[in-house]
Amino acid sequence: MKIARFSSGGDPRFGIVDGDDLVVLKGDPLFTGLDTLDERVPLDSVKLLAPVIPRSKIVCVGMNYPEHKAELGNQGPDSPLIFLKPNTAVIGPGDTIQLPPVEGRVVHEGELGVVIGRIAKRVKAEDWKDYVFGYTIGNDVSARDEQFRDGQWARAKGYDTFCPLGPVIETELDPSNLEITTTVDGEERRRGNTADMIHGIPEIIAFASDVWTLLPGDVILTGTPAGLGGFTDGQTVDITIEGIGTLSNPARNRD
Amino acid sequence: MKIARFSSGGDPRFGIVDGDDLVVLKGDPLFTGLDTLDERVPLDSVKLLAPVIPRSKIVCVGMNYPEHKAELGNQGPDSPLIFLKPNTAVIGPGDTIQLPPVEGRVVHEGELGVVIGRIAKRVKAEDWKDYVFGYTIGNDVSARDEQFRDGQWARAKGYDTFCPLGPVIETELDPSNLEITTTVDGEERRRGNTADMIHGIPEIIAFASDVWTLLPGDVILTGTPAGLGGFTDGQTVDITIEGIGTLSNPARNRD
Repeated sequence: MKIARFSSGGDPRFGIVDGDDLVVLKGDPLFTGLDTLDERVPLDSVKLLAPVIPRSKIVCVGMNYPEHKAELGNQGPDSPLIFLKPNTAVIGPGDTIQLPPVEGRVVHEGELGVVIGRIAKRVKAEDWKDYVFGYTIGNDVSARDEQFRDGQWARAKGYDTFCPLGPVIETELDPSNLEITTTVDGEERRRGNTADMIHGIPEIIAFASDVWTLLPGDVILTGTPAGLGGFTDGQTVDITIEGIGTLSNPARNRD
Repeated sequence: MKIARFSSGGDPRFGIVDGDDLVVLKGDPLFTGLDTLDERVPLDSVKLLAPVIPRSKIVCVGMNYPEHKAELGNQGPDSPLIFLKPNTAVIGPGDTIQLPPVEGRVVHEGELGVVIGRIAKRVKAEDWKDYVFGYTIGNDVSARDEQFRDGQWARAKGYDTFCPLGPVIETELDPSNLEITTTVDGEERRRGNTADMIHGIPEIIAFASDVWTLLPGDVILTGTPAGLGGFTDGQTVDITIEGIGTLSNPARNRD
């Protein structure tokens, strides 16, 4: 089932994708379940929004694909390297990535996003599925040169608009073997498969939930595969993951 | 004015400290102002809670006192080094810091906390006061050896209970010359003065709000002065800042 968060002019609402329509939900499915209203709206009549705004955390896993880790010099611990992006960085499908006046490159990182559905504290790896609401696509946009200048990555990956999410949350998906493709203006720049993750989703959920409690609506971005990442003013970044769809965002230099 | 968040058994409420009493507020002063109810409760009859739970971010400033920066090898950029702690790490005054089974030391970092009162985006340094609701005390608890092992600090500083805040928010305070003292079981371990910050609060607010929008209730922890930081199971960490009070938290190994 594909769940979208959308606006048709008023407050954000949620719906289930059914062909070319959305069947409107009574509330936020993370908190009020999947009861539907007797209302359908055509998908092409609404603006899709980021399918979730985390109340607490966007947890990112760094260097979680072997070739990408090698690109960055194989630094970091053997355990998952987790860090945070703020919820103020989230934008939705079609929204503009605003490029700040930073030194050096800004790069895309197309990633599978895991949306947490239940309070998760010190979860056992084998119980991981009980805590997952569904999957979306995330772009862990990074000011790459500033990232290494700071040492800490929070700033260079935390700018407003640096976390596009969407277009939907797919609740029924086996995440273990999904192709992830990123293009810039239609040219392929990164390709990988979730089967190649160094730390799989069960291990990540167990590891992260041992550190900090995960709350419903928290999103885990599971890392990006290798490839060329730069993009600039006027270009459009499309990230496609099998079974979920395509997250497309144009980029503009910020005013 | 000192504002506390408290519980007398039911949901959290807010009050203004008036002698030995709290004058109860109608709602969360960040969102509903300072209107009071016709109700007073004795301070010693309630449990004080963390005075704010950030909806978005706890922004920390690393190595913001010269001697502490030297202790850590003077690494890092010339601009403020900002990073994030998650809101799930917040506990209140008197709550227990739960020490996870990490390698090496866990250390306290007593810091002045700035509570943001208004949406702050690309604020000019000279306008900083318009965006501050008040000041509290924060303990940027850090698993110091794990912090350096990861390289990224989010995990080692993000464990549940690793962000004690409180005991109150002081809304009327000049933050530019305040003594900060940290003791463990009554023995002084760190001492410093906010006058010695490398990056002052106006610069920090301008810098951080250029990166990410600060929301009401976001907290900026402005860095710790130099000193010995380790503490262990059974010890109690007290952080005192002139004009705010003392934030006291016992520590226990987690179950």
